[in-house]
Amino acid sequence: MASLLVTGSIGIDCVQTPHGQVEDALGGSAVYFALAASAQGPVRLVGVAGEDFPERFTAMLSDRPIDLAGLERRKGSKTFRWRGQYAGAMNEATTLATDLNVLAEKGPTIPAGFRDSRYVFLANTHPTLQRELLSQLAGPELVVCDTMNLWIRTEREELLLTLGMVDGVVLNDAEARMLTGIDNLVGAGQKILTYGPEFVVIKKGEHGVMLVGREGIFVLPAMPMYDVVDPTGAGDSFAGGMMGYLAGQNRVDTMALRTAMAWGTVTASFTIQDFSVGRLLNLGRAAIMARLAEYRDMLRFEE
Amino acid sequence: MASLLVTGSIGIDCVQTPHGQVEDALGGSAVYFALAASAQGPVRLVGVAGEDFPERFTAMLSDRPIDLAGLERRKGSKTFRWRGQYAGAMNEATTLATDLNVLAEKGPTIPAGFRDSRYVFLANTHPTLQRELLSQLAGPELVVCDTMNLWIRTEREELLLTLGMVDGVVLNDAEARMLTGIDNLVGAGQKILTYGPEFVVIKKGEHGVMLVGREGIFVLPAMPMYDVVDPTGAGDSFAGGMMGYLAGQNRVDTMALRTAMAWGTVTASFTIQDFSVGRLLNLGRAAIMARLAEYRDMLRFEE
Repeated sequence: MASLLVTGSIGIDCVQTPHGQVEDALGGSAVYFALAASAQGPVRLVGVAGEDFPERFTAMLSDRPIDLAGLERRKGSKTFRWRGQYAGAMNEATTLATDLNVLAEKGPTIPAGFRDSRYVFLANTHPTLQRELLSQLAGPELVVCDTMNLWIRTEREELLLTLGMVDGVVLNDAEARMLTGIDNLVGAGQKILTYGPEFVVIKKGEHGVMLVGREGIFVLPAMPMYDVVDPTGAGDSFAGGMMGYLAGQNRVDTMALRTAMAWGTVTASFTIQDFSVGRLLNLGRAAIMARLAEYRDMLRFEE
Repeated sequence: MASLLVTGSIGIDCVQTPHGQVEDALGGSAVYFALAASAQGPVRLVGVAGEDFPERFTAMLSDRPIDLAGLERRKGSKTFRWRGQYAGAMNEATTLATDLNVLAEKGPTIPAGFRDSRYVFLANTHPTLQRELLSQLAGPELVVCDTMNLWIRTEREELLLTLGMVDGVVLNDAEARMLTGIDNLVGAGQKILTYGPEFVVIKKGEHGVMLVGREGIFVLPAMPMYDVVDPTGAGDSFAGGMMGYLAGQNRVDTMALRTAMAWGTVTASFTIQDFSVGRLLNLGRAAIMARLAEYRDMLRFEE
């Protein structure tokens, strides 16, 4: 088991879906990632919250094997807030309000004790900050980043510099198309490889994921779910399950990456069964493995 | 190898995609199905064309193991015509013109020699006509139908009667949602089972297919393709590959159905590599099996 570090947002979410709503719930990309990955082993969390960040949220995280030495609770600042809603097939969130708050200030610092981290996930944040964080690390084994449409539109050059420094990138299908101008996803993935990464994972929401790497293509459907309650954090949970598996195996060959994507897929299927991080708080490796067996069976055919 | 029959449209298509265009090309649901299935064995084709149906199109079909005893070339009538275009990711066609022509007249008759057909695919047409055709058959082993948004909207009661008489239905995700009013695809599929069929195959275009049956769910991603030239007929080719496999195996258990869907997926991946039926004209079982091996490899992960 190699060390795993995530940097990204710590948030307070208000979410409405056809199944109900939650106010002031724990959220943020690094939070979903860390909780999801913690089902497989220890995780180091780096991020900044505000003075208003509830003690009970810190407790939810510290109840899991999540090292909070990199969680800064900044005096005089307020936690990042997001309010969104999902309708219909819930494939896309409508953002009703975003208050960047502390995320608009200085970024977090990676604690000295975390600088030797071997597996690193740079969850979605400004690409310049992603590189700054990366520069504080002592030669990690695997660095994977996420990004979003905002940076593709407004910080393209910075984003391309970041992509030139990571081993892998995880992004959704619309972002892959926007980044490359190529509609065909295989083509878009191959174009992104020319920016530097060794592999690209394209998330397609309810339609699964595609890996485009130097050794070829790999595809997985999502776990078919009847009871989708709240899709928030599915993508970050996928990344958490994926990186948690790789750190656990301490290898990054193609077959490990494929299997990691199956772990990510199944991990994310738990996240969406409850609001906020509800289902992740007591998710264990055994539950993931049981559903992974179901998932594998669901994909089985002959000859 | 059991007998396989398809009824549906025979058409002349004009199609434009980002890769070019074709004028007056062979098309129609029954044509794509028959050509796709003929890679695996003989197919009986039932449909009506007009007097204007070119002799060279008939030759394209008869060059394959397709029995044209049920292809009526009706004097004084004109062949069904469709003009459409695809843009961007080519997930959906924009219909520019539809001339029903002979399809607005009396339907085809199933030749006496075809009435003992064991495996039957009722490609998309008016649901009342689908039942009329079905009533001309002597107790087939497996009947699967397709449908479209038009009938869901305008002929719902007739369509429900048809669904009550078939073993399986193949439709796309938007149609499944429209038919049931349920956005979640697993939920939509399960609702359709209550209308009568034993199984529902939901086609998701570039995102693959989902099977919802009494024994559970099965999912497959589409074959990732870089060179998508013209998606026309992909759904009917999928059905042709699927039914061709089932007729070839002469069994319809769950595992046969799953494997049939993989054959359908791979068969359709050839169709979209060329305009019209171009790639299907000389498609053989060996080429499908070779790509099926690639596809299987593309889905492989550990543990």
